[in-house]
Amino acid sequence: MGTENVKNMDFFFNPSSVAVVGASGVPGKLSGIILASLLKSRFKGAVYPVNPKYTEVLGIACYPSIKAIGKEIDIAIFALPAALTPAAVKAAAGLAAGAIIVSGGFGEADGWEYESEIKTIAADSGMRVIGPNCMGIYDTLTRLDTFFIADERIKRPKRGGLSMVSQSGSFAITAMDELAADGLGVARIISYGNKADVNESDCLDFLAEDDATKAVALYIESVDDGRRFVEAAGRCSAQKPVMAVKVGKGAAGSSAARSHTGAIAGRPEIYSAAFKKAGVVELHGYEDFICGCKAYGIRNEPLECRGSRVMIITDGGGMGVGIADACVQAGLEVAAPSADVVERLSAIFPAYFSMGNPIDLTGSVTDEWYARSLEAAMSGDNYDIAIVAALWGPPNLTDDLAKLLAWKARESGKPVIICSPGGAYSRKKAKLFMKEGLPVFTTPEAAVRAAAVLARGAAGRRRAI
Amino acid sequence: MGTENVKNMDFFFNPSSVAVVGASGVPGKLSGIILASLLKSRFKGAVYPVNPKYTEVLGIACYPSIKAIGKEIDIAIFALPAALTPAAVKAAAGLAAGAIIVSGGFGEADGWEYESEIKTIAADSGMRVIGPNCMGIYDTLTRLDTFFIADERIKRPKRGGLSMVSQSGSFAITAMDELAADGLGVARIISYGNKADVNESDCLDFLAEDDATKAVALYIESVDDGRRFVEAAGRCSAQKPVMAVKVGKGAAGSSAARSHTGAIAGRPEIYSAAFKKAGVVELHGYEDFICGCKAYGIRNEPLECRGSRVMIITDGGGMGVGIADACVQAGLEVAAPSADVVERLSAIFPAYFSMGNPIDLTGSVTDEWYARSLEAAMSGDNYDIAIVAALWGPPNLTDDLAKLLAWKARESGKPVIICSPGGAYSRKKAKLFMKEGLPVFTTPEAAVRAAAVLARGAAGRRRAI
Repeated sequence: MGTENVKNMDFFFNPSSVAVVGASGVPGKLSGIILASLLKSRFKGAVYPVNPKYTEVLGIACYPSIKAIGKEIDIAIFALPAALTPAAVKAAAGLAAGAIIVSGGFGEADGWEYESEIKTIAADSGMRVIGPNCMGIYDTLTRLDTFFIADERIKRPKRGGLSMVSQSGSFAITAMDELAADGLGVARIISYGNKADVNESDCLDFLAEDDATKAVALYIESVDDGRRFVEAAGRCSAQKPVMAVKVGKGAAGSSAARSHTGAIAGRPEIYSAAFKKAGVVELHGYEDFICGCKAYGIRNEPLECRGSRVMIITDGGGMGVGIADACVQAGLEVAAPSADVVERLSAIFPAYFSMGNPIDLTGSVTDEWYARSLEAAMSGDNYDIAIVAALWGPPNLTDDLAKLLAWKARESGKPVIICSPGGAYSRKKAKLFMKEGLPVFTTPEAAVRAAAVLARGAAGRRRAI
Repeated sequence: MGTENVKNMDFFFNPSSVAVVGASGVPGKLSGIILASLLKSRFKGAVYPVNPKYTEVLGIACYPSIKAIGKEIDIAIFALPAALTPAAVKAAAGLAAGAIIVSGGFGEADGWEYESEIKTIAADSGMRVIGPNCMGIYDTLTRLDTFFIADERIKRPKRGGLSMVSQSGSFAITAMDELAADGLGVARIISYGNKADVNESDCLDFLAEDDATKAVALYIESVDDGRRFVEAAGRCSAQKPVMAVKVGKGAAGSSAARSHTGAIAGRPEIYSAAFKKAGVVELHGYEDFICGCKAYGIRNEPLECRGSRVMIITDGGGMGVGIADACVQAGLEVAAPSADVVERLSAIFPAYFSMGNPIDLTGSVTDEWYARSLEAAMSGDNYDIAIVAALWGPPNLTDDLAKLLAWKARESGKPVIICSPGGAYSRKKAKLFMKEGLPVFTTPEAAVRAAAVLARGAAGRRRAI
């Protein structure tokens, strides 16, 4: 396997036809949910239900077999019991370029032999296989959606620049749902499960060359071929930011991972070293994953972060102290402003103001104070990242704040991270910042996690140069 | 100062009369906001606006001075510029039992001399003073509310068992707003700011004896009299759980704290040792504070947690792995189920199920599977805490889940912590658990933080016995 796989994977992300094997109108059946979701998502290609029991399913023609469709199919989707899957997949080989097997009961349970049969079929026929035990693909470009959970329960994000590759289906859909609720768009999400064939490295090969993907986030329980992974991840990270979380770290976690996707988790230090070598920013757990996705995924072009020097601007002194603490703990620098920054700030604010780091604008704050202090602090080469903790208690803050800060952030050319903690009002206001392309977080620690991910990314790029 | 202060503080939490000095109907003025909020919150005592410029404010009689009211006042509230405050407070001494000074511009800025005058007035007259540079008191029992931020912006929580004591006003209101949005109730919240007189130890003395308070959470930037703090906190923690976050840890954080409330932050190890000695559970930052408040504040009676052995039950394998990782990192035990637990589980589930720790109930999960596996895992003496990570993708889960789990949690007598991560649907469902008295969190790490706070509390009690 090598870069030739890039070609082999392409059709998954540009399919002109999809067959749903076993599709029926019976409520609750996975294949039926997938078919309904393909029709609802306005998938751009042709959709063929395949089921010998029906001539029509959900109002469209149903075929007794893939062969009976009478043309080559790009992707055949299987949601059958494990024991029935190998024969069905074999019948598709030579007729479909690729298969997505969403059903479980394979290597993660007691179905090793079924998984091994599927591996053999893939190797012998050249048909590429995603899964088994996965969610498949959610793609905002082609509108392919094999995620078999109704969007009342799990929201589909709008189009954006982030692509996600996950061994775990539940992790992928939960993160996707949270990012959708927060207003972050995605390009492609791939849940590859037990990887009988297609694995994280294949996905990285494709995403490296994919113009729609501006940043990549990986969830990994195990990597089988470490050398190939480092090569693929390195090629991808040379093009765009790549982040990865490796779970299954302690004895408890790795045993959990084994029974989840059949993965042998391996020692965490080895993964950390591989990530570093490949220029991959390591993420630590779910919260870090979400923060990294928002920090790198919010813009169409990746944020240019050059270091770890943080300026904190707030109207709530206590929050400022907490952010400073969290920064120091995360290895970020929170240096007092140099003479030129103080001079710029002094031209704006009365002398009794707290012009340290944090800059505390107090409850008298206005939108303009925020904008002007951000400009004063970030216009020189004193700080690499700004964290603006805008508490919404002060009566003079308005909805214009988001636009003003986004403008000043663009002018500075540096990442500006927003912290908007609190309840219903603050959560509503937080959305304003996301709309303006500023990543927003609801706790001091989450904002700091995002800053730390960007700083680690900057350090990785410096090493690579 | 000693336990005699308990009596001196009482009236702040049972006042029959409050004067708002400088109150007017001018929009945006702090004293006017406080007056409006006292009238709106249905404060149980008499309210007297004091302002020589008016005979009526917001429809009630206004007095030229506190003296002119003609009776003793429990609390006089001051929201005047710092320079005008000492004279106004002095005029109230002897007429009001206590003062709450919400205005800033004192020790945290360049107003040390005003603060020192206020200290002298308090010491000479015996009038107790909360503040300056604080929010004052929000009390769900007396309905006193001096928090000068409209409840459209900062929600007031309903009545509950948690009391909060905070040096920082912004921290207190942000945490309060978040807890209110999450459905957690509180008893009393005290923001004491620069503590010209009343400090954290005075508050602890009162809360130790306060039947309405079932658990206490402290936010501290600095403590002046360490010995008195350890005594007061120790007395309180003998009655109910006491948690504390100490901020201003690194050089950056402690310098931020100084310019915030004029606090000299001191070395963090000293605080950690003092907390341990006093039986106080140490919290690390804002997120830990929120998690601790929910874990200890959700029930009317404090949760009985006896150790750090965690059982994880989920329907999403990847989330289970992440929780196991986070547990191990937080020093919690995630041991595989012993023979008797496996036996109980085997009686319920087919053999191919993953009956480890986590127990992975997969996408086929039902409400009953959750309830029965929780019962099987927690009924013996194998685990101290359960973390149930209920992802809402699986189609068979219903709203009954919360009631069922609450019932099994009560039966087990052990804390059951819910993790309900994701977007809009999961956040809505999360509220069901809070209503049933189960603390719920939206990330694996947050659920683990809550478990760790309970486990640290259990360890503290074991040390104390």
